[in-house]
Amino acid sequence: MRVNGAQSDVIGVTDRGLQYGDGLFETIAVVNGQPCLWQVHMDRLQAGCSRLGIPMPDRDLLLAEARQEIGQQPRCVLKIIITRGVGGRGYRPPVETACSRILYSSPWPDYPAAAVKQGVKLRVCNTRLGSNPTLAGIKHLNRLEQVMAQAEWDDSAIAEGVMLDHDERVVEGTMSNLFVLQDGQLLTPDLSRCGTAGVMRGLVMDIAASLEIPVTVMDMKLDQLWEADALFLCNSLIGIWPVRQLEDRAYDLSAIPPILREAITAQGFVP
Amino acid sequence: MRVNGAQSDVIGVTDRGLQYGDGLFETIAVVNGQPCLWQVHMDRLQAGCSRLGIPMPDRDLLLAEARQEIGQQPRCVLKIIITRGVGGRGYRPPVETACSRILYSSPWPDYPAAAVKQGVKLRVCNTRLGSNPTLAGIKHLNRLEQVMAQAEWDDSAIAEGVMLDHDERVVEGTMSNLFVLQDGQLLTPDLSRCGTAGVMRGLVMDIAASLEIPVTVMDMKLDQLWEADALFLCNSLIGIWPVRQLEDRAYDLSAIPPILREAITAQGFVP
Repeated sequence: MRVNGAQSDVIGVTDRGLQYGDGLFETIAVVNGQPCLWQVHMDRLQAGCSRLGIPMPDRDLLLAEARQEIGQQPRCVLKIIITRGVGGRGYRPPVETACSRILYSSPWPDYPAAAVKQGVKLRVCNTRLGSNPTLAGIKHLNRLEQVMAQAEWDDSAIAEGVMLDHDERVVEGTMSNLFVLQDGQLLTPDLSRCGTAGVMRGLVMDIAASLEIPVTVMDMKLDQLWEADALFLCNSLIGIWPVRQLEDRAYDLSAIPPILREAITAQGFVP
Repeated sequence: MRVNGAQSDVIGVTDRGLQYGDGLFETIAVVNGQPCLWQVHMDRLQAGCSRLGIPMPDRDLLLAEARQEIGQQPRCVLKIIITRGVGGRGYRPPVETACSRILYSSPWPDYPAAAVKQGVKLRVCNTRLGSNPTLAGIKHLNRLEQVMAQAEWDDSAIAEGVMLDHDERVVEGTMSNLFVLQDGQLLTPDLSRCGTAGVMRGLVMDIAASLEIPVTVMDMKLDQLWEADALFLCNSLIGIWPVRQLEDRAYDLSAIPPILREAITAQGFVP
Protein backbone atom coordinates (compact mmCIF):
# COMPACT_ATOMS: atom_id res chain seq x y z
CA MET A 1 0.00 0.00 0.00
CA ARG A 2 1.20 3.45 -0.85
CA VAL A 3 -0.04 6.75 0.53
CA ASN A 4 1.31 9.93 -1.05
CA GLY A 5 4.28 8.07 -2.43
CA ALA A 6 5.39 6.36 0.77
CA GLN A 7 4.70 2.80 1.84
CA SER A 8 1.85 3.09 4.30
CA ASP A 9 -1.50 1.50 5.03
CA VAL A 10 -2.98 4.39 7.01
CA ILE A 11 -4.33 7.86 6.37
CA GLY A 12 -4.83 10.81 8.70
CA VAL A 13 -8.10 10.93 10.58
CA THR A 14 -8.66 14.52 9.42
CA ASP A 15 -8.37 13.60 5.74
CA ARG A 16 -11.48 14.81 3.95
CA GLY A 17 -11.81 11.41 2.34
CA LEU A 18 -12.80 9.99 5.72
CA GLN A 19 -14.48 13.11 7.08
CA TYR A 20 -16.84 13.69 4.14
CA GLY A 21 -16.18 11.06 1.48
CA ASP A 22 -14.58 13.99 -0.34
CA GLY A 23 -12.73 12.15 -3.08
CA LEU A 24 -12.82 9.63 -5.89
CA PHE A 25 -11.65 6.13 -6.66
CA GLU A 26 -10.86 3.79 -9.52
CA THR A 27 -10.91 -0.01 -9.40
CA ILE A 28 -8.64 -1.35 -12.12
CA ALA A 29 -8.23 -4.92 -13.36
CA VAL A 30 -4.63 -6.07 -13.58
CA VAL A 31 -4.20 -8.89 -16.10
CA ASN A 32 -0.87 -10.32 -17.22
CA GLY A 33 0.74 -7.81 -14.88
CA GLN A 34 -0.76 -4.84 -16.74
CA PRO A 35 -3.35 -2.37 -15.47
CA CYS A 36 -6.15 -2.68 -18.02
CA LEU A 37 -7.74 0.35 -19.69
CA TRP A 38 -5.35 2.62 -17.82
CA GLN A 39 -5.93 5.70 -19.98
CA VAL A 40 -9.69 5.34 -19.77
CA HIS A 41 -9.54 5.01 -15.99
CA MET A 42 -7.29 8.07 -15.85
CA ASP A 43 -9.68 10.03 -18.08
CA ARG A 44 -12.56 9.25 -15.77
CA LEU A 45 -10.51 10.08 -12.69
CA GLN A 46 -9.55 13.38 -14.28
CA ALA A 47 -13.18 14.14 -15.12
CA GLY A 48 -14.13 13.38 -11.52
CA CYS A 49 -11.32 15.56 -10.15
CA SER A 50 -12.41 18.37 -12.42
CA ARG A 51 -16.03 18.04 -11.27
CA LEU A 52 -15.09 18.09 -7.59
CA GLY A 53 -12.39 20.74 -8.01
CA ILE A 54 -9.60 18.44 -6.86
CA PRO A 55 -6.28 18.77 -8.72
CA MET A 56 -5.60 15.62 -10.76
CA PRO A 57 -2.34 13.93 -9.74
CA ASP A 58 0.25 13.49 -12.45
CA ARG A 59 -0.65 10.45 -14.58
CA ASP A 60 2.95 9.30 -14.96
CA LEU A 61 3.41 9.41 -11.21
CA LEU A 62 0.24 7.37 -10.71
CA LEU A 63 1.36 4.83 -13.29
CA ALA A 64 4.81 4.50 -11.72
CA GLU A 65 3.23 3.97 -8.30
CA ALA A 66 0.68 1.57 -9.76
CA ARG A 67 3.49 -0.54 -11.23
CA GLN A 68 5.23 -0.61 -7.86
CA GLU A 69 2.04 -1.82 -6.18
CA ILE A 70 1.39 -4.45 -8.87
CA GLY A 71 4.95 -5.74 -8.66
CA GLN A 72 5.18 -9.25 -10.05
CA GLN A 73 1.51 -10.10 -9.59
CA PRO A 74 0.09 -11.39 -12.89
CA ARG A 75 -3.52 -10.78 -11.85
CA CYS A 76 -4.90 -8.59 -9.12
CA VAL A 77 -7.12 -5.59 -8.51
CA LEU A 78 -5.54 -2.15 -8.27
CA LYS A 79 -7.45 0.46 -6.33
CA ILE A 80 -6.61 4.14 -6.55
CA ILE A 81 -8.21 6.60 -4.13
CA ILE A 82 -7.76 10.35 -4.52
CA THR A 83 -9.10 12.60 -1.77
CA ARG A 84 -9.12 16.35 -1.26
CA GLY A 85 -6.61 15.80 1.55
CA VAL A 86 -6.59 17.74 4.79
CA GLY A 87 -7.83 21.25 5.37
CA GLY A 88 -10.63 23.64 4.70
CA ARG A 89 -13.11 24.90 7.21
CA GLY A 90 -15.80 22.38 7.93
CA TYR A 91 -17.31 21.26 4.65
CA ARG A 92 -15.72 24.15 2.76
CA PRO A 93 -12.79 22.96 0.62
CA PRO A 94 -9.39 24.54 1.28
CA VAL A 95 -8.22 27.20 -1.16
CA GLU A 96 -5.02 25.28 -1.87
CA THR A 97 -5.62 21.55 -2.14
CA ALA A 98 -2.84 19.04 -1.48
CA CYS A 99 -4.77 15.94 -2.42
CA SER A 100 -4.06 12.53 -0.94
CA ARG A 101 -3.37 9.59 -3.24
CA ILE A 102 -3.67 6.00 -2.13
CA LEU A 103 -2.79 3.00 -4.26
CA TYR A 104 -2.96 -0.67 -3.35
CA SER A 105 -3.52 -4.03 -4.88
CA SER A 106 -5.77 -6.80 -3.63
CA PRO A 107 -6.38 -10.38 -4.78
CA TRP A 108 -8.70 -10.99 -7.72
CA PRO A 109 -12.23 -11.50 -6.32
CA ASP A 110 -13.54 -15.06 -6.37
CA TYR A 111 -16.49 -14.31 -8.60
CA PRO A 112 -18.58 -17.40 -9.44
CA ALA A 113 -16.89 -19.06 -12.42
CA ALA A 114 -20.23 -19.89 -13.99
CA ALA A 115 -21.29 -16.22 -14.13
CA VAL A 116 -19.73 -15.48 -17.50
CA LYS A 117 -21.10 -18.57 -19.31
CA GLN A 118 -24.32 -19.39 -17.47
CA GLY A 119 -25.30 -15.89 -16.53
CA VAL A 120 -26.27 -14.43 -13.18
CA LYS A 121 -29.41 -13.92 -11.17
CA LEU A 122 -30.45 -10.39 -10.17
CA ARG A 123 -32.92 -8.77 -7.85
CA VAL A 124 -34.45 -5.32 -7.70
CA CYS A 125 -33.19 -3.31 -4.71
CA ASN A 126 -35.45 -1.33 -2.41
CA THR A 127 -32.77 1.29 -1.70
CA ARG A 128 -33.12 4.10 -4.20
CA LEU A 129 -30.42 6.34 -5.68
CA GLY A 130 -30.80 10.02 -4.84
CA SER A 131 -30.59 12.41 -7.78
CA ASN A 132 -27.63 14.71 -7.88
CA PRO A 133 -26.49 15.92 -11.31
CA THR A 134 -23.42 17.53 -9.68
CA LEU A 135 -22.17 14.11 -8.60
CA ALA A 136 -23.79 11.87 -11.22
CA GLY A 137 -21.50 9.71 -13.34
CA ILE A 138 -18.30 10.14 -11.33
CA LYS A 139 -16.88 7.48 -9.02
CA HIS A 140 -16.85 9.45 -5.78
CA LEU A 141 -16.43 8.14 -2.25
CA ASN A 142 -20.04 8.69 -1.11
CA ARG A 143 -21.21 5.11 -1.46
CA LEU A 144 -23.68 4.56 1.36
CA GLU A 145 -26.51 3.98 -1.09
CA GLN A 146 -24.61 1.07 -2.62
CA VAL A 147 -23.70 -0.27 0.84
CA MET A 148 -27.33 -0.15 1.97
CA ALA A 149 -28.50 -1.75 -1.27
CA GLN A 150 -26.05 -4.65 -0.97
CA ALA A 151 -27.02 -5.12 2.68
CA GLU A 152 -30.57 -5.87 1.52
CA TRP A 153 -29.89 -9.47 0.52
CA ASP A 154 -27.84 -12.36 1.80
CA ASP A 155 -28.42 -15.03 -0.85
CA SER A 156 -25.19 -15.88 -2.63
CA ALA A 157 -27.23 -17.15 -5.59
CA ILE A 158 -28.10 -13.52 -6.33
CA ALA A 159 -25.09 -11.86 -7.90
CA GLU A 160 -26.28 -8.28 -8.19
CA GLY A 161 -29.12 -5.89 -7.48
CA VAL A 162 -30.70 -3.40 -9.86
CA MET A 163 -31.03 0.09 -8.42
CA LEU A 164 -33.75 2.59 -9.31
CA ASP A 165 -33.97 6.29 -8.64
CA HIS A 166 -36.81 8.00 -6.78
CA ASP A 167 -38.87 8.31 -9.93
CA GLU A 168 -38.63 4.53 -10.43
CA ARG A 169 -36.18 4.87 -13.30
CA VAL A 170 -33.70 2.03 -13.66
CA VAL A 171 -30.15 3.35 -13.18
CA GLU A 172 -27.56 0.62 -12.68
CA GLY A 173 -26.48 -2.33 -10.55
CA THR A 174 -24.95 -1.76 -7.13
CA MET A 175 -21.48 -2.38 -8.60
CA SER A 176 -22.12 -2.57 -12.34
CA ASN A 177 -23.79 -0.89 -15.28
CA LEU A 178 -26.72 -2.45 -17.06
CA PHE A 179 -27.47 -2.99 -20.75
CA VAL A 180 -30.73 -4.13 -22.34
CA LEU A 181 -30.87 -5.93 -25.67
CA GLN A 182 -34.07 -5.21 -27.53
CA ASP A 183 -34.67 -6.00 -31.19
CA GLY A 184 -30.96 -6.10 -31.93
CA GLN A 185 -30.31 -2.75 -30.25
CA LEU A 186 -28.55 -1.93 -27.00
CA LEU A 187 -30.27 0.32 -24.49
CA THR A 188 -28.66 1.61 -21.31
CA PRO A 189 -29.88 3.99 -18.61
CA ASP A 190 -29.09 7.68 -18.74
CA LEU A 191 -26.72 8.60 -15.88
CA SER A 192 -27.08 12.35 -15.84
CA ARG A 193 -29.03 12.42 -12.54
CA CYS A 194 -27.33 9.63 -10.62
CA GLY A 195 -25.26 6.51 -11.12
CA THR A 196 -21.65 5.82 -12.05
CA ALA A 197 -20.52 5.87 -15.67
CA GLY A 198 -18.35 2.77 -15.64
CA VAL A 199 -15.23 2.46 -17.73
CA MET A 200 -16.52 -0.89 -19.06
CA ARG A 201 -19.86 0.73 -19.92
CA GLY A 202 -17.99 3.18 -22.12
CA LEU A 203 -16.03 0.37 -23.73
CA VAL A 204 -19.17 -1.66 -24.42
CA MET A 205 -20.69 1.39 -26.10
CA ASP A 206 -17.56 1.92 -28.20
CA ILE A 207 -17.37 -1.71 -29.25
CA ALA A 208 -21.09 -1.82 -30.05
CA ALA A 209 -20.66 1.24 -32.24
CA SER A 210 -17.74 -0.39 -34.06
CA LEU A 211 -19.92 -3.46 -34.65
CA GLU A 212 -22.73 -1.20 -35.87
CA ILE A 213 -25.00 -2.27 -33.04
CA PRO A 214 -27.13 0.79 -32.24
CA VAL A 215 -26.86 2.01 -28.62
CA THR A 216 -29.44 4.28 -27.03
CA VAL A 217 -28.91 6.02 -23.70
CA MET A 218 -32.34 6.60 -22.25
CA ASP A 219 -34.65 6.95 -19.29
CA MET A 220 -35.71 3.42 -18.50
CA LYS A 221 -38.38 1.89 -16.27
CA LEU A 222 -38.56 -1.69 -15.01
CA ASP A 223 -41.01 -2.53 -17.81
CA GLN A 224 -38.13 -2.15 -20.21
CA LEU A 225 -36.28 -4.90 -18.34
CA TRP A 226 -39.26 -7.26 -18.22
CA GLU A 227 -39.78 -6.82 -21.96
CA ALA A 228 -36.08 -7.09 -22.91
CA ASP A 229 -34.76 -9.85 -25.17
CA ALA A 230 -31.68 -10.04 -22.95
CA LEU A 231 -29.80 -8.16 -20.23
CA PHE A 232 -26.18 -7.96 -19.27
CA LEU A 233 -24.09 -6.25 -16.62
CA CYS A 234 -20.60 -4.90 -16.93
CA ASN A 235 -17.80 -3.46 -14.86
CA SER A 236 -14.03 -3.26 -15.02
CA LEU A 237 -13.48 -6.50 -13.15
CA ILE A 238 -16.29 -8.77 -14.33
CA GLY A 239 -16.16 -7.65 -17.97
CA ILE A 240 -19.69 -8.59 -18.95
CA TRP A 241 -22.05 -10.94 -17.17
CA PRO A 242 -25.17 -12.07 -19.04
CA VAL A 243 -28.30 -12.04 -16.90
CA ARG A 244 -30.03 -15.40 -16.51
CA GLN A 245 -32.82 -14.14 -14.30
CA LEU A 246 -34.16 -10.92 -12.80
CA GLU A 247 -36.60 -11.63 -9.98
CA ASP A 248 -39.00 -14.16 -11.62
CA ARG A 249 -38.22 -13.25 -15.22
CA ALA A 250 -35.78 -15.57 -17.06
CA TYR A 251 -33.77 -14.39 -20.07
CA ASP A 252 -32.29 -16.03 -23.13
CA LEU A 253 -28.52 -15.73 -22.91
CA SER A 254 -28.09 -16.54 -26.58
CA ALA A 255 -29.78 -13.26 -27.50
CA ILE A 256 -26.53 -11.47 -26.65
CA PRO A 257 -24.48 -11.30 -29.87
CA PRO A 258 -21.45 -13.58 -29.37
CA ILE A 259 -19.40 -11.13 -31.40
CA LEU A 260 -20.01 -8.42 -28.77
CA ARG A 261 -18.72 -10.64 -26.00
CA GLU A 262 -15.80 -11.85 -28.10
CA ALA A 263 -14.85 -8.30 -28.95
CA ILE A 264 -14.79 -7.34 -25.29
CA THR A 265 -12.89 -10.47 -24.28
CA ALA A 266 -10.43 -9.79 -27.10
CA GLN A 267 -9.42 -6.60 -25.31
CA GLY A 268 -7.45 -9.00 -23.14
CA PHE A 269 -8.55 -7.75 -19.76
CA VAL A 270 -11.57 -9.90 -19.16
CA PRO A 271 -10.91 -13.20 -17.37
CA MET B 1 -6.76 11.95 18.96
CA ARG B 2 -7.94 8.48 19.80
CA VAL B 3 -8.70 5.62 17.44
CA ASN B 4 -10.27 2.50 18.91
CA GLY B 5 -9.07 3.43 22.36
CA ALA B 6 -5.44 4.08 21.51
CA GLN B 7 -3.75 7.43 20.94
CA SER B 8 -3.52 7.72 17.18
CA ASP B 9 -4.23 10.20 14.43
CA VAL B 10 -4.51 7.70 11.58
CA ILE B 11 -6.93 5.09 10.34
CA GLY B 12 -6.45 2.13 8.01
CA VAL B 13 -6.80 2.81 4.31
CA THR B 14 -9.23 -0.11 4.00
CA ASP B 15 -11.56 1.26 6.66
CA ARG B 16 -15.04 1.50 5.18
CA GLY B 17 -15.30 5.04 6.51
CA LEU B 18 -12.76 6.12 3.89
CA GLN B 19 -13.71 3.59 1.23
CA TYR B 20 -17.43 4.36 1.14
CA GLY B 21 -18.22 7.01 3.74
CA ASP B 22 -19.75 4.07 5.60
CA GLY B 23 -20.20 5.61 9.03
CA LEU B 24 -21.54 8.44 11.15
CA PHE B 25 -20.30 11.41 13.11
CA GLU B 26 -21.26 13.79 15.89
CA THR B 27 -19.90 17.28 16.42
CA ILE B 28 -20.30 18.22 20.06
CA ALA B 29 -19.81 21.58 21.76
CA VAL B 30 -17.62 21.44 24.86
CA VAL B 31 -18.36 24.34 27.22
CA ASN B 32 -16.91 24.71 30.72
CA GLY B 33 -15.10 21.44 30.06
CA GLN B 34 -18.37 19.53 29.58
CA PRO B 35 -19.65 17.92 26.39
CA CYS B 36 -23.03 19.61 25.87
CA LEU B 37 -26.18 17.64 25.18
CA TRP B 38 -24.23 14.41 25.48
CA GLN B 39 -27.26 12.13 25.83
CA VAL B 40 -29.02 13.70 22.88
CA HIS B 41 -25.93 13.30 20.70
CA MET B 42 -25.64 9.69 21.82
CA ASP B 43 -29.32 9.07 21.05
CA ARG B 44 -28.84 10.39 17.52
CA LEU B 45 -25.65 8.39 17.04
CA GLN B 46 -27.48 5.28 18.21
CA ALA B 47 -30.36 5.97 15.82
CA GLY B 48 -27.85 6.38 12.99
CA CYS B 49 -26.02 3.18 13.92
CA SER B 50 -29.31 1.34 14.02
CA ARG B 51 -30.29 2.67 10.59
CA LEU B 52 -26.98 1.68 9.01
CA GLY B 53 -26.74 -1.62 10.89
CA ILE B 54 -23.55 -0.62 12.71
CA PRO B 55 -23.29 -1.75 16.35
CA MET B 56 -23.41 1.26 18.66
CA PRO B 57 -20.27 1.54 20.82
CA ASP B 58 -20.80 1.52 24.56
CA ARG B 59 -21.87 4.99 25.72
CA ASP B 60 -19.82 4.88 28.90
CA LEU B 61 -16.74 3.99 26.91
CA LEU B 62 -17.38 6.87 24.51
CA LEU B 63 -17.88 9.27 27.42
CA ALA B 64 -14.68 8.13 29.12
CA GLU B 65 -12.74 8.58 25.89
CA ALA B 66 -14.42 11.92 25.25
CA ARG B 67 -13.28 13.14 28.68
CA GLN B 68 -9.74 12.04 27.94
CA GLU B 69 -9.78 13.98 24.66
CA ILE B 70 -11.29 17.06 26.27
CA GLY B 71 -8.77 17.01 29.10
CA GLN B 72 -8.49 20.42 30.74
CA GLN B 73 -9.85 22.40 27.79
CA PRO B 74 -12.71 24.63 28.96
CA ARG B 75 -14.08 25.12 25.45
CA CYS B 76 -13.50 23.11 22.32
CA VAL B 77 -15.26 21.00 19.74
CA LEU B 78 -15.39 17.24 20.21
CA LYS B 79 -15.84 15.15 17.10
CA ILE B 80 -16.80 11.49 17.24
CA ILE B 81 -16.65 9.36 14.10
CA ILE B 82 -17.99 5.81 14.05
CA THR B 83 -17.38 3.72 10.94
CA ARG B 84 -18.30 0.18 9.96
CA GLY B 85 -14.60 -0.67 10.25
CA VAL B 86 -12.76 -3.00 7.93
CA GLY B 87 -14.19 -5.94 6.02
CA GLY B 88 -17.05 -7.09 3.89
CA ARG B 89 -16.91 -7.83 0.22
CA GLY B 90 -16.95 -4.70 -1.86
CA TYR B 91 -19.89 -2.58 -0.81
CA ARG B 92 -21.48 -5.47 1.09
CA PRO B 93 -21.11 -5.00 4.87
CA PRO B 94 -19.31 -7.73 6.81
CA VAL B 95 -21.46 -10.18 8.76
CA GLU B 96 -19.61 -9.37 11.98
CA THR B 97 -18.85 -5.68 12.33
CA ALA B 98 -15.97 -4.42 14.46
CA CYS B 99 -16.68 -0.73 14.09
CA SER B 100 -13.98 1.93 14.28
CA ARG B 101 -14.38 4.77 16.74
CA ILE B 102 -12.45 8.01 16.44
CA LEU B 103 -12.58 10.86 18.94
CA TYR B 104 -10.72 14.14 18.87
CA SER B 105 -11.04 17.70 19.97
CA SER B 106 -10.36 20.82 17.95
CA PRO B 107 -10.35 24.54 18.80
CA TRP B 108 -13.65 26.39 18.96
CA PRO B 109 -14.33 27.84 15.47
CA ASP B 110 -13.87 31.59 15.09
CA TYR B 111 -17.45 32.27 14.10
CA PRO B 112 -18.16 35.97 13.55
CA ALA B 113 -18.95 37.43 16.97
CA ALA B 114 -21.69 39.61 15.52
CA ALA B 115 -23.62 36.62 14.17
CA VAL B 116 -25.61 35.98 17.33
CA LYS B 117 -26.70 39.58 17.91
CA GLN B 118 -26.75 41.16 14.46
CA GLY B 119 -27.76 38.08 12.52
CA VAL B 120 -26.21 36.51 9.45
CA LYS B 121 -26.55 36.77 5.73
CA LEU B 122 -27.55 33.70 3.69
CA ARG B 123 -27.66 32.66 0.09
CA VAL B 124 -29.57 29.97 -1.76
CA CYS B 125 -27.28 27.18 -3.00
CA ASN B 126 -27.42 25.73 -6.49
CA THR B 127 -26.31 22.29 -5.32
CA ARG B 128 -29.38 20.22 -4.52
CA LEU B 129 -29.81 17.49 -1.92
CA GLY B 130 -30.64 14.07 -3.36
CA SER B 131 -33.59 12.29 -1.78
CA ASN B 132 -32.86 9.15 0.16
CA PRO B 133 -35.27 8.23 2.95
CA THR B 134 -32.91 5.41 4.02
CA LEU B 135 -30.24 7.96 4.90
CA ALA B 136 -32.36 11.04 5.66
CA GLY B 137 -32.00 12.59 9.09
CA ILE B 138 -28.86 10.77 10.22
CA LYS B 139 -25.41 12.34 10.34
CA HIS B 140 -23.59 9.97 8.02
CA LEU B 141 -20.20 10.43 6.37
CA ASN B 142 -21.47 10.96 2.80
CA ARG B 143 -21.15 14.73 2.72
CA LEU B 144 -20.14 15.62 -0.83
CA GLU B 145 -23.36 17.54 -1.37
CA GLN B 146 -22.50 19.83 1.53
CA VAL B 147 -18.90 20.17 0.31
CA MET B 148 -20.04 21.11 -3.19
CA ALA B 149 -22.62 23.54 -1.80
CA GLN B 150 -20.07 25.34 0.38
CA ALA B 151 -17.64 25.48 -2.54
CA GLU B 152 -20.19 27.60 -4.40
CA TRP B 153 -19.36 30.85 -2.64
CA ASP B 154 -16.27 32.58 -1.36
CA ASP B 155 -17.71 35.70 0.26
CA SER B 156 -17.02 35.68 4.00
CA ALA B 157 -19.96 38.06 4.48
CA ILE B 158 -22.25 35.14 3.66
CA ALA B 159 -22.39 32.83 6.64
CA GLU B 160 -24.48 30.00 5.31
CA GLY B 161 -26.30 28.64 2.28
CA VAL B 162 -29.85 27.29 2.12
CA MET B 163 -30.12 23.93 0.37
CA LEU B 164 -33.14 22.71 -1.57
CA ASP B 165 -34.01 19.23 -2.80
CA HIS B 166 -34.72 18.31 -6.42
CA ASP B 167 -38.35 19.28 -6.09
CA GLU B 168 -37.31 22.77 -4.95
CA ARG B 169 -38.29 22.11 -1.37
CA VAL B 170 -36.24 23.93 1.25
CA VAL B 171 -34.40 21.41 3.44
CA GLU B 172 -31.67 22.97 5.58
CA GLY B 173 -28.45 24.96 5.61
CA THR B 174 -25.18 23.33 4.56
CA MET B 175 -24.23 22.95 8.23
CA SER B 176 -27.36 23.99 10.09
CA ASN B 177 -31.10 23.52 10.34
CA LEU B 178 -33.53 26.26 9.48
CA PHE B 179 -36.58 27.64 11.28
CA VAL B 180 -39.17 30.07 9.97
CA LEU B 181 -41.18 32.37 12.23
CA GLN B 182 -44.59 33.10 10.81
CA ASP B 183 -47.48 34.67 12.74
CA GLY B 184 -45.98 33.62 16.06
CA GLN B 185 -45.49 30.02 14.96
CA LEU B 186 -42.32 28.09 14.15
CA LEU B 187 -42.10 26.18 10.89
CA THR B 188 -39.24 23.90 9.93
CA PRO B 189 -38.64 21.65 6.91
CA ASP B 190 -39.58 18.00 6.97
CA LEU B 191 -36.40 15.86 6.85
CA SER B 192 -37.85 12.49 5.91
CA ARG B 193 -36.41 12.54 2.37
CA CYS B 194 -33.04 14.21 2.95
CA GLY B 195 -31.24 16.47 5.38
CA THR B 196 -29.76 16.02 8.84
CA ALA B 197 -31.94 16.20 11.93
CA GLY B 198 -29.69 18.33 14.10
CA VAL B 199 -29.48 17.91 17.85
CA MET B 200 -30.07 21.66 18.24
CA ARG B 201 -33.11 21.46 15.95
CA GLY B 202 -34.59 18.93 18.33
CA LEU B 203 -33.80 21.14 21.32
CA VAL B 204 -35.35 24.21 19.68
CA MET B 205 -38.51 22.20 19.05
CA ASP B 206 -38.60 20.98 22.65
CA ILE B 207 -38.06 24.45 24.07
CA ALA B 208 -40.64 25.97 21.74
CA ALA B 209 -43.15 23.35 22.90
CA SER B 210 -42.38 24.17 26.53
CA LEU B 211 -42.96 27.86 25.74
CA GLU B 212 -46.23 26.96 23.99
CA ILE B 213 -44.92 28.23 20.67
CA PRO B 214 -46.51 25.99 18.03
CA VAL B 215 -44.01 24.16 15.79
CA THR B 216 -44.96 22.66 12.43
CA VAL B 217 -42.71 20.30 10.46
CA MET B 218 -43.66 20.71 6.83
CA ASP B 219 -42.76 20.68 3.17
CA MET B 220 -41.51 24.17 2.48
CA LYS B 221 -40.74 26.12 -0.68
CA LEU B 222 -38.65 29.27 -0.99
CA ASP B 223 -41.84 31.36 -1.00
CA GLN B 224 -42.24 30.42 2.63
CA LEU B 225 -38.87 32.02 3.35
CA TRP B 226 -39.57 35.19 1.41
CA GLU B 227 -42.87 35.60 3.25
CA ALA B 228 -41.53 34.74 6.71
CA ASP B 229 -41.58 37.22 9.60
CA ALA B 230 -38.14 35.98 10.62
CA LEU B 231 -35.69 33.12 10.06
CA PHE B 232 -33.04 31.54 12.19
CA LEU B 233 -30.45 28.79 11.86
CA CYS B 234 -29.26 26.39 14.49
CA ASN B 235 -26.65 23.75 15.11
CA SER B 236 -24.79 22.31 18.08
CA LEU B 237 -21.95 24.82 17.89
CA ILE B 238 -23.61 28.06 16.84
CA GLY B 239 -26.68 27.60 19.01
CA ILE B 240 -29.05 29.84 17.08
CA TRP B 241 -28.17 32.53 14.56
CA PRO B 242 -30.90 34.96 13.53
CA VAL B 243 -30.99 35.64 9.80
CA ARG B 244 -30.47 39.25 8.80
CA GLN B 245 -30.74 38.70 5.08
CA LEU B 246 -31.41 35.91 2.56
CA GLU B 247 -30.33 36.94 -0.92
CA ASP B 248 -32.03 40.37 -1.28
CA ARG B 249 -34.67 39.87 1.38
CA ALA B 250 -33.96 41.48 4.77
CA TYR B 251 -35.57 40.22 7.98
CA ASP B 252 -36.56 41.74 11.28
CA LEU B 253 -34.43 40.13 13.99
CA SER B 254 -36.74 41.36 16.72
CA ALA B 255 -39.49 39.07 15.45
CA ILE B 256 -37.68 36.15 17.11
CA PRO B 257 -39.11 35.85 20.64
CA PRO B 258 -36.29 36.81 23.04
CA ILE B 259 -37.58 34.18 25.45
CA LEU B 260 -36.80 31.45 22.91
CA ARG B 261 -33.23 32.57 22.58
CA GLU B 262 -32.84 33.06 26.31
CA ALA B 263 -34.20 29.59 26.96
CA ILE B 264 -31.67 28.07 24.57
CA THR B 265 -28.81 30.14 25.96
CA ALA B 266 -29.88 29.16 29.46
CA GLN B 267 -29.04 25.55 28.62
CA GLY B 268 -25.50 26.73 29.18
CA PHE B 269 -23.92 25.37 26.04
CA VAL B 270 -24.36 28.28 23.68
CA PRO B 271 -21.49 30.76 23.63
